[in-house]
Amino acid sequence: MIKTFYKTLLICLFLSIHNICSANDGYKLWLQYNYIEDSDIRDNYLSHLNSVQYFGDSETINVIKEEISLAMKSLFGNDYLKNINKNGLIIGATSNLNTKILKKLKNEISNIQKDGFVIKQVKIGGIKQIVITAKTDIGVLYGTFNFLKRLQTHQSIDKINVIDFPKVDIRMLNHWDNLDRTVERGYSGFSIWDWHRLPNYIDTRYKDYARANASIGINGTALTNVNSNALILTPHYIEKVKAIADVFRPYGIKVYLTARFSAPIEIGNLETADPLDENVAKWWKDKTAEIYKEIPDFGGFLVKANSEGQPGPQNYGRNHIDGANMLADAVKPFNGIVMWRAFVYSEHDPDDRAKQAYSEFVPYDGQFRDNVLIQVKNGAIDFQPREPFHPMFGAMAKTNLMMEFQITQEYMGQGTHLVYQPKLYEEVLKADTYREGKGSFVAKVIDGSLHNKKITGIAGVANIGTDINWTGHHFLQANWYGFGRMAWNPYLKSSDIAEEWIKMTFTNEKAFVKPVKKMMVSSRETVVNYMTPYGLHHIMATGHHFGPGPWVDNLSRPEWNPVYYHKADENGVGFNRTNTGSNATAQYASAVKEIYNNIETTPEIYLLWFHHIPWDYKLKNGETLWNGLALKYQQGVNEVEEMKSTWNSLKKYIDPQRFKEISMMFDVQLNDAKWWRDSCLLYFQQFSKKPLPKGVEKSKITLEYFKSLKFPFAPGN
Amino acid sequence: MIKTFYKTLLICLFLSIHNICSANDGYKLWLQYNYIEDSDIRDNYLSHLNSVQYFGDSETINVIKEEISLAMKSLFGNDYLKNINKNGLIIGATSNLNTKILKKLKNEISNIQKDGFVIKQVKIGGIKQIVITAKTDIGVLYGTFNFLKRLQTHQSIDKINVIDFPKVDIRMLNHWDNLDRTVERGYSGFSIWDWHRLPNYIDTRYKDYARANASIGINGTALTNVNSNALILTPHYIEKVKAIADVFRPYGIKVYLTARFSAPIEIGNLETADPLDENVAKWWKDKTAEIYKEIPDFGGFLVKANSEGQPGPQNYGRNHIDGANMLADAVKPFNGIVMWRAFVYSEHDPDDRAKQAYSEFVPYDGQFRDNVLIQVKNGAIDFQPREPFHPMFGAMAKTNLMMEFQITQEYMGQGTHLVYQPKLYEEVLKADTYREGKGSFVAKVIDGSLHNKKITGIAGVANIGTDINWTGHHFLQANWYGFGRMAWNPYLKSSDIAEEWIKMTFTNEKAFVKPVKKMMVSSRETVVNYMTPYGLHHIMATGHHFGPGPWVDNLSRPEWNPVYYHKADENGVGFNRTNTGSNATAQYASAVKEIYNNIETTPEIYLLWFHHIPWDYKLKNGETLWNGLALKYQQGVNEVEEMKSTWNSLKKYIDPQRFKEISMMFDVQLNDAKWWRDSCLLYFQQFSKKPLPKGVEKSKITLEYFKSLKFPFAPGN
Repeated sequence: MIKTFYKTLLICLFLSIHNICSANDGYKLWLQYNYIEDSDIRDNYLSHLNSVQYFGDSETINVIKEEISLAMKSLFGNDYLKNINKNGLIIGATSNLNTKILKKLKNEISNIQKDGFVIKQVKIGGIKQIVITAKTDIGVLYGTFNFLKRLQTHQSIDKINVIDFPKVDIRMLNHWDNLDRTVERGYSGFSIWDWHRLPNYIDTRYKDYARANASIGINGTALTNVNSNALILTPHYIEKVKAIADVFRPYGIKVYLTARFSAPIEIGNLETADPLDENVAKWWKDKTAEIYKEIPDFGGFLVKANSEGQPGPQNYGRNHIDGANMLADAVKPFNGIVMWRAFVYSEHDPDDRAKQAYSEFVPYDGQFRDNVLIQVKNGAIDFQPREPFHPMFGAMAKTNLMMEFQITQEYMGQGTHLVYQPKLYEEVLKADTYREGKGSFVAKVIDGSLHNKKITGIAGVANIGTDINWTGHHFLQANWYGFGRMAWNPYLKSSDIAEEWIKMTFTNEKAFVKPVKKMMVSSRETVVNYMTPYGLHHIMATGHHFGPGPWVDNLSRPEWNPVYYHKADENGVGFNRTNTGSNATAQYASAVKEIYNNIETTPEIYLLWFHHIPWDYKLKNGETLWNGLALKYQQGVNEVEEMKSTWNSLKKYIDPQRFKEISMMFDVQLNDAKWWRDSCLLYFQQFSKKPLPKGVEKSKITLEYFKSLKFPFAPGN
Repeated sequence: MIKTFYKTLLICLFLSIHNICSANDGYKLWLQYNYIEDSDIRDNYLSHLNSVQYFGDSETINVIKEEISLAMKSLFGNDYLKNINKNGLIIGATSNLNTKILKKLKNEISNIQKDGFVIKQVKIGGIKQIVITAKTDIGVLYGTFNFLKRLQTHQSIDKINVIDFPKVDIRMLNHWDNLDRTVERGYSGFSIWDWHRLPNYIDTRYKDYARANASIGINGTALTNVNSNALILTPHYIEKVKAIADVFRPYGIKVYLTARFSAPIEIGNLETADPLDENVAKWWKDKTAEIYKEIPDFGGFLVKANSEGQPGPQNYGRNHIDGANMLADAVKPFNGIVMWRAFVYSEHDPDDRAKQAYSEFVPYDGQFRDNVLIQVKNGAIDFQPREPFHPMFGAMAKTNLMMEFQITQEYMGQGTHLVYQPKLYEEVLKADTYREGKGSFVAKVIDGSLHNKKITGIAGVANIGTDINWTGHHFLQANWYGFGRMAWNPYLKSSDIAEEWIKMTFTNEKAFVKPVKKMMVSSRETVVNYMTPYGLHHIMATGHHFGPGPWVDNLSRPEWNPVYYHKADENGVGFNRTNTGSNATAQYASAVKEIYNNIETTPEIYLLWFHHIPWDYKLKNGETLWNGLALKYQQGVNEVEEMKSTWNSLKKYIDPQRFKEISMMFDVQLNDAKWWRDSCLLYFQQFSKKPLPKGVEKSKITLEYFKSLKFPFAPGN
């Protein structure tokens, strides 16, 4: 009997080691809860975890129980709750804890802000209890995930005493998902929102999506594309949205929808969508009430208006204030918000595209309702591998202004290149706007501290799709994770985030964590090197933006052509945005303006963003611009080769499926990096008329071939 | 140490039992290889499996090794190969076995046909060896999967002696997958062919798809939609197709492509696609050679020509013979084949749509090349819940003619209704065409025995997509499985197939297998009852075919309107296809014709297919037609209710994820069954002007509401 028993045991050990029970397909993201093999660490944890007491009764407390049980059984197996002693966990909101416990936490509790939490070890009647508490059950959920992360990453919990809280109010994902399940700029399959089967069939993914987001503090999701379809606001779809909202609610995630400005005409049978027309205003009020009736905690609307052909108030001779405030008034009674995007540029405006959002919006400062947030992309063009921070940050002291990052990699290798984006987010958030003098960091605009804003927010355009591993490339899960962490706290170091993600997702093995962290942290600079070094930008092939296309010059709108952005000619390359050029620099605070107006003080990473420079210009490293560019492209390729060999050297630390899939992705990335290097250098060489410097590989392929490449069904287009 | 060791063991046991390591998402299909809990069965098997010897060296032998190791470790864990005795497995093709073994198998080997196999226990030097052998390595692979199935289903292997072989040559799946990854008539996500990432990134699914297909004997796959895009024939895509073919090859699966007849114009820069134009013929010869250069075992072309707007030879005043033979000559040198679809009907032909394929093709009998197969749908209309067999079966004695079944459920609840389709396949294959007298079963046409055909084939339109469980609804995996089994042997009993599938996919637990089998086997009759009883057909909503639409009468082509098919009026309902009507019955052998011409001898399941019948016509059960119809609709709903409660009573036998997902699907199916009952009865009642009989629930919803329903983004359209 015993023999058969242990025989039975042996199997699963065997299986688990060999990943046969189930090869790791990455579906579990960073919530792997890998069994803790190290018995010292395990036993130490277990000595604190002999019981769990939950206080409070809510859907959120129930999902906390589920998560704790899932995690503990996975981390500790049968050893969990084996009662070596009386030490245990206490989990619940302050309002549900008894005074004996509360006394021990007086100071900490008084310091809890918003949905923040406390995790503290206290002694009650000689028994060590780790208390996870907060003012709200959602705060308790965040504290629970924080605690579980410490176990996953093998951190000490002896005498634990942690206080943390979100520094930004609205931390959300924007899904550019269409109702036909295609995803604009989506590179990991199709939309996870299975509208046809909703509301009666609830895909298991919805709950796992909510768990993953709650684990990093994300508290909002805009389900639909900013290029919106009015049908999402019809009853047929509202009941489907409600079904999703019901799944998300216990996890503290609010649902938002994109509002097509012309909806009153398309589904409301009105003749106009003029925001000052009272029937239009009434239609939106009624529609909003209809939505809140089904979804009492509906978050509000995200709007792309008068941008890239989308309808908006300007179609009726009105402005963004008229449009945004009309919608704001509709959601106000329900404490809803309106996120109005500042991503606007017009083919009729001959001015530098980089200047148009600022020119259109900054004059409106102070005129938007207090439940409106203006959503601004991190840079003034469009999610490039590198852009200077957007001049609007800090420029609207009397307006709620939120950040829009792109997690999906429209311009950064799309679904197949390892680019650890939190490094980019960090660069932007740390940038100094000088709006209130030195130290006026973008992060202070986003957390509202610079001009003490009423509501703060940060949005990331999701990279999530139906691929089993959610993001196509396993490593791109880290960008979802990292975005959430920095939305919670814009002052975090991206390298620290990378380390915790690696440990949770793969292993705590030092020999694996160190090189992989190094690879991730440098990967963003690598993509800049092989795509757009020295401030080059928007030279991707047009439409699908897949691969290089610096030669494209035949599109209807000038600012859609790469040649508009690099302006390469025999005299040099780059976009003069200084006071001698488009004067976009004038949109920055004077301290910043002066830095960028002067080629000597402009950081070389932004050189060609702000200046048109001769090919033989001497870089700080002594190389000519042409040689410097060529060397950067080559360096990018070399760095991908290093990443690839680093990864292939780590095979023994990782399950075969993820190892192989990631390994194939590096092959793709290396091919693409060479494609970028070769085609861009061949193209620019036509103007520089200079040979490649030593150390730069010569292309074996002609520029004509690169120009001839077509990708008729490239995804995300 | 030992303690820690066993502690470690405990975990995975715990986890595996509780499905925490990984909830069962259904990805593993029927290849679950569940650990055999019953120690008697396990020990008995193990006494035969103390070693494995492989003979031969090929990619196929390698995948056999992989599969054996995966399966055995999963079925037996560490107990596998523990050497209680010397008995073992011998695996390899006859040409690689030594004479000592061959002697023991002389008779069996002489009886192996095609890719058939032998599994026999022999004694060599006093040691019991189970030999799995065949003439080809693919045959050995089939034998291996057959043997593993016996272990999965807990069948005895003592003195095993099995010979089996495929009765049909070409056993293939047709994927109606577009290059943008949408799937025509696909209801389980999107195309698994990730064209953009190919050829450098090989999705793990491709190999698992090949494993699943090889395990049921499928040996061909048409990757692309019959409504084809010529781009698939360009070098950019051919290298992607090659990458897939390379994955499939070891599993004995050939790749086929759909050939757009106008490709010579669209990608070949020719001015015509006239099959008798020598440049066109040469273009196809060159294109074919180009494909075979990359894919030496390329299977050939599947063609939909001059059907539903697709280009074809008739555009140039030629006929199907001209088109098919021209392509056949191009693939002939490479032993390729052409599958030419008989699914044709013209809006210009006023005759009964059911007659047109027969009228167009049967006169051509004997004129097609011997490497052409005419692919005929099981019925003369279009994949209805029930149709009489297609009159072409048996009518072309001198032509290779293959079956096209639909596995995906375009007209049968699409992705959310449990309909076990092998029951339908069985009904068709068992139908007697009487072409060569009594016993001229459709199965004998398909296996070629009726007119001893040179090449035989059977195709199923796949129900596979990117959903993690492949088919959306877990139970619809059984239709993929069952199609493959009946393609291998068209004489199998669908109920036996259901039983083996249940055991492999879920559990061998009798208390689970029996009721689930009963539910599956009756499910096809159930969908007929709540959708189209008594021979009603094609009354689905048009376009997406989702849900009922008997009222639709406004489409451009008469034969696209449901009213064309049911012809309901005050006098009655049904399509008179007898000699007093469209005379479609004349296309059958006279014995069959007479049966169908006579309302008395016509099986009631086909009543309204062949006859227009008064509402008060007396059915064999004594009810009037109207009451009978109403009672059938009600019965369908009742049966779904039974299925639902059966399922919910079996919770304890199955993992939580699959239980819950299937349970939600039954909710959807029940809602839809009521929707069908209510809307169809309300509609037909307008003509019958009769009350609902006792026992039939009255609709709480109006016909106008049902008519108003719109599904703008229904999948598969």
